[in-house]
Amino acid sequence: MSDKPHDYCGIFGIYNHPEAAVHTYYGLHALQHRGQESAGIVTSWFDPEKSIPVMPQHKGFGLVLNVFENQKIFTEKLLGHAAIGHNRYSTSGAAANAQNIQPFRVHYKNGNLAIAHNGNLTNAAALRKMLEERGVIFQSTSDTELILHLISHSDKSTQLDQILDALGQIEGAYCLLLLTDEKLIAVRDPNGFRPLVLGKKDESWVVASETCAFDINQVELIRDIKPGEVLIIDRQTMESGMPRSLHLEPIHGTGDSQCIFEYVYFSRPDSRIFGENTDKVRRKIGKYLAKEFPIPDVTSTRTDKVPIVISVPDSSNTAALGYAHENQKQGNDCKYEIGLIRNHYVGRTFIAPGQASRDVKVRTKFNTVKGVLKDRVVFLVDDSIVRGTTSAHLVNMIRNAGPKEIHFLVSSPPIMHPCYYGMDFPSPEELIANVHRGNIEDIARSIGADSLHYLSPEGLVDAVREANPEGRGFCTACFTGKYPVPVSSRMLKEENEYY
Amino acid sequence: MSDKPHDYCGIFGIYNHPEAAVHTYYGLHALQHRGQESAGIVTSWFDPEKSIPVMPQHKGFGLVLNVFENQKIFTEKLLGHAAIGHNRYSTSGAAANAQNIQPFRVHYKNGNLAIAHNGNLTNAAALRKMLEERGVIFQSTSDTELILHLISHSDKSTQLDQILDALGQIEGAYCLLLLTDEKLIAVRDPNGFRPLVLGKKDESWVVASETCAFDINQVELIRDIKPGEVLIIDRQTMESGMPRSLHLEPIHGTGDSQCIFEYVYFSRPDSRIFGENTDKVRRKIGKYLAKEFPIPDVTSTRTDKVPIVISVPDSSNTAALGYAHENQKQGNDCKYEIGLIRNHYVGRTFIAPGQASRDVKVRTKFNTVKGVLKDRVVFLVDDSIVRGTTSAHLVNMIRNAGPKEIHFLVSSPPIMHPCYYGMDFPSPEELIANVHRGNIEDIARSIGADSLHYLSPEGLVDAVREANPEGRGFCTACFTGKYPVPVSSRMLKEENEYY
Amino acid sequence: MSDKPHDYCGIFGIYNHPEAAVHTYYGLHALQHRGQESAGIVTSWFDPEKSIPVMPQHKGFGLVLNVFENQKIFTEKLLGHAAIGHNRYSTSGAAANAQNIQPFRVHYKNGNLAIAHNGNLTNAAALRKMLEERGVIFQSTSDTELILHLISHSDKSTQLDQILDALGQIEGAYCLLLLTDEKLIAVRDPNGFRPLVLGKKDESWVVASETCAFDINQVELIRDIKPGEVLIIDRQTMESGMPRSLHLEPIHGTGDSQCIFEYVYFSRPDSRIFGENTDKVRRKIGKYLAKEFPIPDVTSTRTDKVPIVISVPDSSNTAALGYAHENQKQGNDCKYEIGLIRNHYVGRTFIAPGQASRDVKVRTKFNTVKGVLKDRVVFLVDDSIVRGTTSAHLVNMIRNAGPKEIHFLVSSPPIMHPCYYGMDFPSPEELIANVHRGNIEDIARSIGADSLHYLSPEGLVDAVREANPEGRGFCTACFTGKYPVPVSSRMLKEENEYY
Amino acid sequence: MSDKPHDYCGIFGIYNHPEAAVHTYYGLHALQHRGQESAGIVTSWFDPEKSIPVMPQHKGFGLVLNVFENQKIFTEKLLGHAAIGHNRYSTSGAAANAQNIQPFRVHYKNGNLAIAHNGNLTNAAALRKMLEERGVIFQSTSDTELILHLISHSDKSTQLDQILDALGQIEGAYCLLLLTDEKLIAVRDPNGFRPLVLGKKDESWVVASETCAFDINQVELIRDIKPGEVLIIDRQTMESGMPRSLHLEPIHGTGDSQCIFEYVYFSRPDSRIFGENTDKVRRKIGKYLAKEFPIPDVTSTRTDKVPIVISVPDSSNTAALGYAHENQKQGNDCKYEIGLIRNHYVGRTFIAPGQASRDVKVRTKFNTVKGVLKDRVVFLVDDSIVRGTTSAHLVNMIRNAGPKEIHFLVSSPPIMHPCYYGMDFPSPEELIANVHRGNIEDIARSIGADSLHYLSPEGLVDAVREANPEGRGFCTACFTGKYPVPVSSRMLKEENEYY
Repeated sequence: MSDKPHDYCGIFGIYNHPEAAVHTYYGLHALQHRGQESAGIVTSWFDPEKSIPVMPQHKGFGLVLNVFENQKIFTEKLLGHAAIGHNRYSTSGAAANAQNIQPFRVHYKNGNLAIAHNGNLTNAAALRKMLEERGVIFQSTSDTELILHLISHSDKSTQLDQILDALGQIEGAYCLLLLTDEKLIAVRDPNGFRPLVLGKKDESWVVASETCAFDINQVELIRDIKPGEVLIIDRQTMESGMPRSLHLEPIHGTGDSQCIFEYVYFSRPDSRIFGENTDKVRRKIGKYLAKEFPIPDVTSTRTDKVPIVISVPDSSNTAALGYAHENQKQGNDCKYEIGLIRNHYVGRTFIAPGQASRDVKVRTKFNTVKGVLKDRVVFLVDDSIVRGTTSAHLVNMIRNAGPKEIHFLVSSPPIMHPCYYGMDFPSPEELIANVHRGNIEDIARSIGADSLHYLSPEGLVDAVREANPEGRGFCTACFTGKYPVPVSSRMLKEENEYY
Repeated sequence: MSDKPHDYCGIFGIYNHPEAAVHTYYGLHALQHRGQESAGIVTSWFDPEKSIPVMPQHKGFGLVLNVFENQKIFTEKLLGHAAIGHNRYSTSGAAANAQNIQPFRVHYKNGNLAIAHNGNLTNAAALRKMLEERGVIFQSTSDTELILHLISHSDKSTQLDQILDALGQIEGAYCLLLLTDEKLIAVRDPNGFRPLVLGKKDESWVVASETCAFDINQVELIRDIKPGEVLIIDRQTMESGMPRSLHLEPIHGTGDSQCIFEYVYFSRPDSRIFGENTDKVRRKIGKYLAKEFPIPDVTSTRTDKVPIVISVPDSSNTAALGYAHENQKQGNDCKYEIGLIRNHYVGRTFIAPGQASRDVKVRTKFNTVKGVLKDRVVFLVDDSIVRGTTSAHLVNMIRNAGPKEIHFLVSSPPIMHPCYYGMDFPSPEELIANVHRGNIEDIARSIGADSLHYLSPEGLVDAVREANPEGRGFCTACFTGKYPVPVSSRMLKEENEYY
Repeated sequence: MSDKPHDYCGIFGIYNHPEAAVHTYYGLHALQHRGQESAGIVTSWFDPEKSIPVMPQHKGFGLVLNVFENQKIFTEKLLGHAAIGHNRYSTSGAAANAQNIQPFRVHYKNGNLAIAHNGNLTNAAALRKMLEERGVIFQSTSDTELILHLISHSDKSTQLDQILDALGQIEGAYCLLLLTDEKLIAVRDPNGFRPLVLGKKDESWVVASETCAFDINQVELIRDIKPGEVLIIDRQTMESGMPRSLHLEPIHGTGDSQCIFEYVYFSRPDSRIFGENTDKVRRKIGKYLAKEFPIPDVTSTRTDKVPIVISVPDSSNTAALGYAHENQKQGNDCKYEIGLIRNHYVGRTFIAPGQASRDVKVRTKFNTVKGVLKDRVVFLVDDSIVRGTTSAHLVNMIRNAGPKEIHFLVSSPPIMHPCYYGMDFPSPEELIANVHRGNIEDIARSIGADSLHYLSPEGLVDAVREANPEGRGFCTACFTGKYPVPVSSRMLKEENEYY
Repeated sequence: MSDKPHDYCGIFGIYNHPEAAVHTYYGLHALQHRGQESAGIVTSWFDPEKSIPVMPQHKGFGLVLNVFENQKIFTEKLLGHAAIGHNRYSTSGAAANAQNIQPFRVHYKNGNLAIAHNGNLTNAAALRKMLEERGVIFQSTSDTELILHLISHSDKSTQLDQILDALGQIEGAYCLLLLTDEKLIAVRDPNGFRPLVLGKKDESWVVASETCAFDINQVELIRDIKPGEVLIIDRQTMESGMPRSLHLEPIHGTGDSQCIFEYVYFSRPDSRIFGENTDKVRRKIGKYLAKEFPIPDVTSTRTDKVPIVISVPDSSNTAALGYAHENQKQGNDCKYEIGLIRNHYVGRTFIAPGQASRDVKVRTKFNTVKGVLKDRVVFLVDDSIVRGTTSAHLVNMIRNAGPKEIHFLVSSPPIMHPCYYGMDFPSPEELIANVHRGNIEDIARSIGADSLHYLSPEGLVDAVREANPEGRGFCTACFTGKYPVPVSSRMLKEENEYY
């Protein structure tokens, strides 16, 4: 209901390209899965007529393709060789507030400044209060606006020092892109919660949440932006051939708190983040799921029909494939099959009129392939269970196709704790794992599965490590409750409630 | 091209009415002539669920009837017993910036605050610079945002003192409505440039730019808000039966600088502002025009057909009627006639496709009543001439109807100077009176009239005084160049140019 | 509620102009008062790529300026040197059926054919039944579609003969524009109910409902299309220099049944129809109103303030002026004044939210000029009274301004009978003159006026004759019940009710 | 360019359900893949107020969810217990003609009649000409309108006989749903080109193009509508418990011409059509592909990395899985992998701004999973190749991921002939198989694959037969040029070109 300021988001920035806005447009399109509520692009150029640097922007509610469907936006408005863009995650359209659409672009004493932000600050309430005491007025409920005020209120003399001063005060999960009249600055928080990658295309430098935004633009991946890194791309970079970096020290935590849920569910399988291909990690997750719950342990039923492994498309495809392959490797007879079909025409605005049964919403999105499921022992792999309602409807739908058994395998541990770093889970009491106090059998019963198996937290971490042995550490707070960065006792909810 | 932050506007506020937003809607509709670019309403109420005061808003580009065409806005969103609203004048749709739509609503240390503003600050550039030095970031190019920052940066402890502190720093022309969680505060600048009236309906108090916004709501006019008055309407008012007032002293000027152009052209004829009915003033203006230029002095032509007086509808109707009646009173034979018809279906978006002659735009708006004009000596009364292009097309169009002569009478003096107090004239070099260096004959020739007569500045002031002998003084700077409040050498243009 | 197929409408056609569609656009804009629900244009050209004649069209709901707001419609779609256009009157938006938007464009054995129609057929039900028996399917509820079927089902060999064959079967009120691949054909019904004028601009020929559509396009008026005339404009016309004409004989009536209500209310005052300027006729109507009801007969009140004559703007302005002038001529002291102001921002979509009193809709449209009305004896001139509700609210609104007396003068007789020829009156039992069985005093009481005076039918006809002595006869059926063309006992209502 | 009247489409009808329109809405949503250009629903009910049967409709351009996003459509407009709906395939938005949106609803001598049509008539031109000679006018370019005219022009006395009379005259591929004031009639052409299934939900009867529209509504599949079957559902059906059927004889062909391309590509894998699950058929197709082109025959390369089989998602997933499983069964080492990711946010309106390389459109839709492809021998399975441009871009994209080899396997034979029965292929000279005169090596070279293999026509038919041994015969004209129903020499193109 409330207009959450802290959510999934996708960001993209480019410097020194004659079609900066166009590349940002494609990049945002590739990052569409990270946010469907709104999209925006800000560019920077020096207007020779006015003899001043300007930052035109175009923003709106909806998918990237809708917000930018008029080609003139690119040829007449979003001029310039540098740009940043942002996709925002959809919570509730009803509460949508246009003033929260990013990037934010403002003018202050040192010129124009635009910012795009993915993540969630944990000390926002305290900073907000401090700034209000200094006379700041807030026009949005976003953490991002807060960062802008910290910069503009800094006593430091140079813009870069002001930015560093502001970054020194914020805590939590954030990837930032800052566009000034001269520079593109990319920042990843010292704990490295969210992914951020650096790429290059000819003489242009590019930064994005995931590498899928590079592929669409034929940008070459250079490396991850490191936790705590402040990367500065400007004219000097063009000369030296490499952006220079500054480093922020973590106030709390180890600097190794990458969000493991990005690998489990959120990133695109064709992206490489945190130093490894998501696809590969997800495959290993499937493998570890098979190690912990091999088919013979899950079911003792023997039929002339080989058991089948199916996924909830598309997000669980790779883990399901990994689960099937590992079982086969172990000699457990099984087949990977396509047992559920997803209708991709369902958009955010889909209405469900009529007195129709409550599960019609699931049926508008999924259907079973009956011939595949009938009389089979079915192993259904899904990446996670949140409230459990969709899972229950899926199991019921599969049950109607006449399988022998349905075993529900989850490629991550039970979600039992809120995320304060940017994932938008429902409140803890709505999480099915909490509803049943972690009793797996009760959860299985409530969703109607013959059995239910969650990958263990250790299994998840081991799987990621096997795929990515050189990688940094991960945050698993939503599974374990161990928060790497302390969370203010009065967390962010109240900011939303002014309006 | 540029997105002017200082323009005509209409404002409306109401306190203590269960249908506050609905009345504001009607009020804004009645004030539609003061601004057609955008409209917005903010209400205030205490949300019992959240246990906090909230200020929902609804704003958008377009006419009031378009912005609020969904009835649910009133029943589900704009709840509360207090509201303020704002109509904004249209300059160029292309440059329209949604962030400039008023009212502005923000949150700061002392709660919610919304503001609607009609006018133009003369010291905005200096204040803006001062605030930027203190770290303020600006999200719009509007003077109004500046006032909010002055309030939030005040050191005073109470909200009211903060507001007074801010008002003490600004100069220029302004009528303000401020909505806080507790109060509705109406302010008219110490020189009283723009009109602002106070009314009452049952137990509700109402403030508006013009009384036409009262009539539509069946609100009783109480009196003008006085120049420099800060009127506070709150729970205490309900008890005492009358809002209390504070007074601001003018920093410059006499405190008697009411915009005479409001009477000449801008206000609706059915409104009462500055203490007198606009209609009555406009009639006297017509009378003085007849005194300065009686028909026999203008033309010596004698025909069997009586000379006719026609107006450019609708704004000049009353002055034309006054001109005709005074001439008749003086024994100068003439008839008031309707010689031009106005097409009221022309909106802001009217396009003029094709290779059509340049005057087609005038023909989409006006047509002549040929039978009325043919063979007549025509006295055409218009309220003002700005660039002169429309006047030239009108004269040409009338000429095609075959009159004997066309005498163009202007019910105000030549406009030769920019207005820094809120009227949106083109730049001085575009004003036809300047193009011809004030040479009336040259202007007459350029618009094609047989003769041209402007009311003198003295005649205009005398006319107003005769209608409104008790009234305060007036600003005539656009005619005389005498600016009652000094204007910063680097006036506001540059603020617009960041974006 | 029902989607009336027979209403006021405006039509425009042009032949042999490189900007045919653009001129049609301007013409429809000038005729906007004849229909605001929808607008459409069809052009004709020979497509060299496809080597066939084509008829592109563009139609939509809304005002002309909205339907055609994309300039590309003219440069990329509506090509060709011939065009016809149509404005449709608004009844109820809710029941709007896109398939009823005109012009209609179809393909049949003899090529493309488009039609625009203003009026109402009286034998539509019988013709419809006859055609249905022959297998015709109807996709709209419009008389216009019926004419197309009559043409396509004709046994005649040439297209022109087919059209004449169809015209020979229809009865009622109609002005038609037919566009074929070769010709523009204009038809006015044999009784001449609706106006239709012929004009010329350079080498182009133009036909329109009213001359105001000529003025905007600088088209020269040639003459009226005569009752029963079938005017054919084609390549031959270009050579001979004059369109050729055929003539339809009236099946019923005298051929002199021009709608007198066009002069009373419907046509624009700047138009010339039925051979005379509407303005002139309306002025004479005011004069005859003064002859029948001179001020001293209406009121015996004597005050030091001269009685005032005001109009309900804008439609009654001219008649009010005529009434005032005639009284003055008779020596009856009075002044023409502007006592009511009309808000022209009220569109079709204006909503009236809230518990507001029922008369708020009138207040959104009109306001009084209080200074003008106070303590005066007021003579309010309106063109007609239909249901009486608006009149009652107006009188009440004026009463609040404190006049001494309010005398309501109607510049036409009481409307007591339905119009079967195209005027969209409510059903007879809703007409206030019927509600009170023609008792004028009762009507006066119900609208709250001190007295009420309708122009007599004879006075109306005499007024029109004085203005237009050479003119043809008029239909006064809505006042007198004398229908010049017989009306089928089961009149057209039922056609609307399929959907 | 041209607005094709003969295309893929989805149809849905329901009789005797209180939420007829709602179920049709869900059914159309499930059939969205069959047409995305427009959607429409017509319902039938007896209006007690008007005492007549009525057929309200709602239609529009766009996806089902967009056309029906206002819930009121269902509660206030589309009332009644019977409904039919239609999805139309998208060709070119630019040429979209609102008059072609189905269902068509008309009124004729025997009442209301609505029709929804999937397919393409082969003798439309001749019938159209015949009807035009009889005086019929055409308002659309659709075959569907033609059927309506045939019905209304029939001499038969009962509506059912008229319909049979009309059906007796048409040839080609068609599935029809006819809604009358009393009945729902479903028709499948005598050759059975397009699928049509019958289902039941409680006391309601349902007809749809595919069973996926049943699943979403929890409708039970009863059976296929048979080729030539005319199924009548009415009040009598409710009593007898089963709809009655009539039978049309094929004028040409065997009555066994089911479109094999429905199985190859067009139907949803979770649908059951032509008597068998599409998924099962597609799996067999993959199997036969493996029989014809087992991995060892395709490549002799031996690496330590097992060859991978990937699909072009989502349409080729099942065939690819079948190909992989069959190879494994044969002992050919390989893995089914997910090597391409599809971005499902690409809509019809996606723009491709900028100077971007030509393959950017493919990259907006697909991306490679690099880790999966690198150094592998890749077997890419796609369902068909039409123009070859997308295939070339896909191969190039995969090549960039560094595979050892890319072998392109097509699960259908080369498309070399136009479809006159409803599939919308480009013109023959644009088909890549024709461009290279069927030379497979040339095609392989042009798309950049190391080898290319098409399933043989015999293999395709055998695969289908193995999956569906009881099934009827199939049309393979697009592969073989053998047209089961003769095609008029002047085929339908010209109809489109009037407008």
